[in-house]
Amino acid sequence: MTTPDPELSAADHDLIAQVSEGRPRAIARMMSRAEAATPADRMALAQIFRRAGKAHVVGITGVPGSGKSTLVRSLALEIRKSNRTVGIVAIDPSSPFSGGSILGDRVRMNDLSGDDGVFIRSMATGGALGGLARPALDTVDVLDAAGFDVVLIETVGVGQDEVDIVSAAHTVVVVSAPGLGDDIQAIKAGVLEIADIHAVSKCDRDDAARTVADLEAMLTLGRGDRRSRGWTPTVVPTSAEKSSNIDRLLNAIDGHLDHLVESGEMKARKRRIAEMRILKAAEDEVRARLLRQRQGKLADLIDKTTDRALSPHAAAMQLLDGIKDDQV
Amino acid sequence: MTTPDPELSAADHDLIAQVSEGRPRAIARMMSRAEAATPADRMALAQIFRRAGKAHVVGITGVPGSGKSTLVRSLALEIRKSNRTVGIVAIDPSSPFSGGSILGDRVRMNDLSGDDGVFIRSMATGGALGGLARPALDTVDVLDAAGFDVVLIETVGVGQDEVDIVSAAHTVVVVSAPGLGDDIQAIKAGVLEIADIHAVSKCDRDDAARTVADLEAMLTLGRGDRRSRGWTPTVVPTSAEKSSNIDRLLNAIDGHLDHLVESGEMKARKRRIAEMRILKAAEDEVRARLLRQRQGKLADLIDKTTDRALSPHAAAMQLLDGIKDDQV
Repeated sequence: MTTPDPELSAADHDLIAQVSEGRPRAIARMMSRAEAATPADRMALAQIFRRAGKAHVVGITGVPGSGKSTLVRSLALEIRKSNRTVGIVAIDPSSPFSGGSILGDRVRMNDLSGDDGVFIRSMATGGALGGLARPALDTVDVLDAAGFDVVLIETVGVGQDEVDIVSAAHTVVVVSAPGLGDDIQAIKAGVLEIADIHAVSKCDRDDAARTVADLEAMLTLGRGDRRSRGWTPTVVPTSAEKSSNIDRLLNAIDGHLDHLVESGEMKARKRRIAEMRILKAAEDEVRARLLRQRQGKLADLIDKTTDRALSPHAAAMQLLDGIKDDQV
Repeated sequence: MTTPDPELSAADHDLIAQVSEGRPRAIARMMSRAEAATPADRMALAQIFRRAGKAHVVGITGVPGSGKSTLVRSLALEIRKSNRTVGIVAIDPSSPFSGGSILGDRVRMNDLSGDDGVFIRSMATGGALGGLARPALDTVDVLDAAGFDVVLIETVGVGQDEVDIVSAAHTVVVVSAPGLGDDIQAIKAGVLEIADIHAVSKCDRDDAARTVADLEAMLTLGRGDRRSRGWTPTVVPTSAEKSSNIDRLLNAIDGHLDHLVESGEMKARKRRIAEMRILKAAEDEVRARLLRQRQGKLADLIDKTTDRALSPHAAAMQLLDGIKDDQV
């Protein structure tokens, strides 16, 4: 299972061994390579992938203002109390143009730093080429291979890319807060149905009871029950401010893992995750091949499409024919 | 330029002619076909594409709660006052699982209905296969070919797909509202840099002056000036509630179009849009070809990846080899 790749450099072989030992600097370096993804990086990541597969991967998603970052921090502390280690991958919304990342509430994570049993990685969208899903899930693999017991993926939960990322978790927690506006509620609809567990945040507020009741009513109507056969999503009211019910949330998360394993559903879920990751990787590869044609056939097709002599779809079909012929 | 495709059915030929005449029922039917995109639909859409290219396409984006829907409605009324017709494509956040669309504040658009010079289309995310960009931009083509002078595309402005859609506009207006939280501001960063015009909404509020000042400070620092050479993005304070400065916003939009045409920048922007649409179409096509293999080679690759004997990237490379050999 851990047979070294003959093409792997000695340095990379050492790096992988250090990741397996859980050394923080090696973990951070391997994560940077997951973002860069050169051919050499991919060979090293393939070895990391083989060593991963033991961690419980938990996706935590919620709209802006839902208080999910604070909840993730509280949950991480709770996991540490149970003598388990925890890795956190936080996906930041950021500019696709500058590549810059807005730290925002990430800084509040600071009280977890200095603890070797916690590793936090913030990721920014990496620009136009390819989505976030591949680097984010490769980063989860690094934490998994490094031996972290639980890996939390925190996303804002808007857009197909983020839905893909959170769908690659074994257990999905959707965070809802009381008192958010209509626009926000509309966005939330996209992730409600993939929840295994609903956490309601800010339950020290008066209007939280209504949010809990709304979610429970939605579940009674049979929505949100599509992911795990035989599992009824639960609603957990929490308050990170008052540190209340964070233990109950962790119990629900652990209970969902037990359900997955005992029911045999885990195998099916892992297959779905593998399929999604293969298709994403294939799409990224094709996109890279297409862009390599920028100076050649593509330039001519852009001219014809700009002049409206050829539709984008017709141009795309000609472009794909070119790729096949060139055996790129 | 409008040579009929020999393979086009007589009925489709009639439908396209009716779209060109601006008949609402034909427009609506063609839009449904843009969402379905069967091979016959694509042939009809290619003809629509050839007839499009005259409208001024304006992207209007802003985070949840920014008040952009209200602003779009006010702007549409202002465009009508200037004796121009206007089409609106509103992209709704919605569930990727149910395919359902949350109407929310769309209903407030009702006071524009009954006016033949306005056509409004709401679109929902169409599920896992392919993104929103292709159907949304094909829908813009339908309105363009139907003779609408201005086409407004309204998006929430989060996620790569939405950034792609709004980047396909000739003029991009980013709507900012005073008093939104930090999480929301962070999300906004992704679209601020593609703005040609910044509209600040809700300027009847006391704290709006600070939002205007913040945006102007950002522009002074040289950010947000990457899209149009020789164009300095302007900040327009508006209040849709009090109908104030909507005329000034429309003047800024018209002024940007004049700049694009006079500077020759329009040609460059149209080429960038064509390139994006071709690449998106190619990616959609490849995704469809990959999914057709679900029963064959992909099933075996999923097994190997689930067992971690093969990395997702290695599996993807084998899958793509399969496509090439089969000449799918």
